[in-house]
Amino acid sequence: MSPVGGEERPIAAELLEALRARRWTVGVAESLTGGLVTAALIDIAGASRSVRGGVIAYASDLKASLLAVPVELLATRGAVDPDVAAAMAVGVRAQLGTDVGLATTGVAGPDQQDGQPPGTVYVAVATPAGVRVGAALLTGGRAAVRAAARDLVLTLAIDVVADRGTGRPPGTLEIM
Amino acid sequence: MSPVGGEERPIAAELLEALRARRWTVGVAESLTGGLVTAALIDIAGASRSVRGGVIAYASDLKASLLAVPVELLATRGAVDPDVAAAMAVGVRAQLGTDVGLATTGVAGPDQQDGQPPGTVYVAVATPAGVRVGAALLTGGRAAVRAAARDLVLTLAIDVVADRGTGRPPGTLEIM
Repeated sequence: MSPVGGEERPIAAELLEALRARRWTVGVAESLTGGLVTAALIDIAGASRSVRGGVIAYASDLKASLLAVPVELLATRGAVDPDVAAAMAVGVRAQLGTDVGLATTGVAGPDQQDGQPPGTVYVAVATPAGVRVGAALLTGGRAAVRAAARDLVLTLAIDVVADRGTGRPPGTLEIM
Repeated sequence: MSPVGGEERPIAAELLEALRARRWTVGVAESLTGGLVTAALIDIAGASRSVRGGVIAYASDLKASLLAVPVELLATRGAVDPDVAAAMAVGVRAQLGTDVGLATTGVAGPDQQDGQPPGTVYVAVATPAGVRVGAALLTGGRAAVRAAARDLVLTLAIDVVADRGTGRPPGTLEIM
């Protein structure tokens, strides 16, 4: 079902393993995925060693008030934007006091948002070394887009935490 | 699979309908469910009219720092406690500026926590009229307990938002 491939459980488990190997904690900032990323991680027994929690900033103003995303950025670009994803990941890392911050923002559909089509998704992973952003235009219905966005950020996080290259240009993940 | 019965989609959809009828917004504070409650709500198209977001306070100290649960309460009772659930629901309502706050805390297992067995779950629903708490000792594995806890808080919220009695003693939900 998912364009990134694989089951929910293995990807989340692989990320937890990579985090434990570095003794890193993680926090998650979610918009369109609405809790799916954090739920996938917490689904795994022993998650409490690495996962501190998450913030689901579904309403745009909560991205500013809970995650310190700059209000001007949201006003000029809208919520579905690579820099907003990056700011969410940096923000949740700071708010939750974790080593790693994950973030998702995008359009689940069925309607477009801020002029962007359903399936437009940006994810970000912030670490002590900086922040990496992934972008995708996903196909499928609302549930499929949200599940694929979840897998996208988990996959990017595994690459970042395990310090692996992706073989793709930095800053982009084309998965269509 | 769930002791409360029903599918994820209908319960969440019924709550959204009850919220829309009263023009109420909702925010969610999750511990053991780790995002499942918010994800079930956001899974439904049109959720953005009622759902503002959520806070997943999986680590105990985040219940204090993100949801204003009193530190003394957490220190004396632990995180799995009916008053902690109530404080989480009140706290997320205030932090997210919503009419209704939902909360879950409990032991998903497989290990016990603070001397309480797996399956011990407390949920709470805060509204402008006050806060109502439900308690349950759920059976099954980690995933089953978390799914049942999700359904428990959604069901309690439907009763509260639709202003229905449950036919059970106030403050308790025995569902075993």
